[in-house]
Amino acid sequence: MEGPFLAVDWGTTNRRAWRIGADGRTVEAEECDGRGILSVAPGGFAAEAAAIRERLGDLPMLCAGMAGSNRGWIETPYLPCPLILDAIADAMTWVEPGRTAILPGAAMTGDRPDVMRGEEVQLLGALAAGLAPPDALLCQPGTHCKWAEMAGGRLAGFVTAMPGELFALLKAHSLLDPQLSGAVAPGPAFLEGVADSGADLLSRLFGIRAASLLGRRGDADAASYASGLLIGTDVAARGVAGRDVHVLAAPALGALYGAAITAFGGRAHAVDSHAAFLAGIIALWRRL
Amino acid sequence: MEGPFLAVDWGTTNRRAWRIGADGRTVEAEECDGRGILSVAPGGFAAEAAAIRERLGDLPMLCAGMAGSNRGWIETPYLPCPLILDAIADAMTWVEPGRTAILPGAAMTGDRPDVMRGEEVQLLGALAAGLAPPDALLCQPGTHCKWAEMAGGRLAGFVTAMPGELFALLKAHSLLDPQLSGAVAPGPAFLEGVADSGADLLSRLFGIRAASLLGRRGDADAASYASGLLIGTDVAARGVAGRDVHVLAAPALGALYGAAITAFGGRAHAVDSHAAFLAGIIALWRRL
Repeated sequence: MEGPFLAVDWGTTNRRAWRIGADGRTVEAEECDGRGILSVAPGGFAAEAAAIRERLGDLPMLCAGMAGSNRGWIETPYLPCPLILDAIADAMTWVEPGRTAILPGAAMTGDRPDVMRGEEVQLLGALAAGLAPPDALLCQPGTHCKWAEMAGGRLAGFVTAMPGELFALLKAHSLLDPQLSGAVAPGPAFLEGVADSGADLLSRLFGIRAASLLGRRGDADAASYASGLLIGTDVAARGVAGRDVHVLAAPALGALYGAAITAFGGRAHAVDSHAAFLAGIIALWRRL
Repeated sequence: MEGPFLAVDWGTTNRRAWRIGADGRTVEAEECDGRGILSVAPGGFAAEAAAIRERLGDLPMLCAGMAGSNRGWIETPYLPCPLILDAIADAMTWVEPGRTAILPGAAMTGDRPDVMRGEEVQLLGALAAGLAPPDALLCQPGTHCKWAEMAGGRLAGFVTAMPGELFALLKAHSLLDPQLSGAVAPGPAFLEGVADSGADLLSRLFGIRAASLLGRRGDADAASYASGLLIGTDVAARGVAGRDVHVLAAPALGALYGAAITAFGGRAHAVDSHAAFLAGIIALWRRL
């Protein structure tokens, strides 16, 4: 299709929406709020979409992400990898034909089952926009970090790790909570955590408490060390040595992953994740 | 010292107390309750001890465990490893001389700092009672699992991992909570988790959700699989292949660790943890 439309990246806790102009390319308006799917009551999604149209314009709307999950608006299928944009465009679920569509997700259905919803738009969009090469390792840090192998311009496969969620759990609910309230920065304590990361994560985490009790590490450094342990354990499992890794993340989190990737002998390249998403959803719009 | 006394194993959430008879050996009374240190208000420990004496007898009392922690009754030192019972007996902190003593803890102060409070009594008690040989690998599963190397009858060194706490966090607070409500048993799903455990724990955990969403594993099996991932990751880091491992645990948890130890080529031997504690604290009493 051509002309203006609304693009929505509907996450679990956050939501981002854009109005794309009549040229089918230019961002004319943008909003970001905390109206992720967990804050929307069942049956409340149509009203949410109407409210977005009131603010951004009465236009066709494409919804990516958790809107298609089993806690979202309408559950949409997972498409198997390898995956291209044409397949996603063909598998839209239309709430109202020509007016509101919800994207499918992507899945790995082999011996390591995995799922994503929304990240596939960023990944394929990054390639469509030339922000990453057609054969590349891409990394999307976050609560759940996605690692995607792109091959020949397709999303060939991916794996999800949960260092971000574990860090949040440890900080909020574990016996380490007195140690984890400090800021996280990619400095020496973070790199010490990266160096200690890997197969013995479960005892290195307890070591944070022991080091505090024995006066061996100041609590101001403990959160950075813990982040290094968790992100390092994630990165160490991906085999990044000698590889280029294209990291789609906000700057602060991207810097942490960049430091860990460098520590394991990889080369990290920052990619603008919002630009990648927009490139992907615009490419999908044109295919409809 | 000789004659009857009270032995208290004062944990974080639970507490166990015994009256040892006039022969300095026989258990005459025992109680177990939820009055761990977290349920005792600051300043409330003397009243707790008085209440124990009302129930079990007005006798001298030895308190092991978290009573000596910085959230406990009186903070007592950590003794460095290698450690023997005589050193612990010499380092008691007396609340009232000859009447109420709090034991020190044990620490690793090298490049892998670690701490324990109470487990050292079990460990050295197991050796004193002949429940494990003087040169052995001992394992104390729990919220925090202790792995101790005993050498020449001494506690030579130890490491603590936190698979139990992570399992509880994931079950109570993570996105995996819908999958983790089932019972945990050392069957095929547990062993599948053990086989998948190790360096990529952070993505294997997310795989639990993916397998559920894609219909690849019933949620009834997911808790056992998750337990296998966590306990397997703990055991895999200890190098148990070809070794005898003496496991001090309640039967259900001991069976899980036994299955994982066997899967990694070790030989698991169950040791009665309460008998080990009593042997240790009785041996300490005689040394005072």
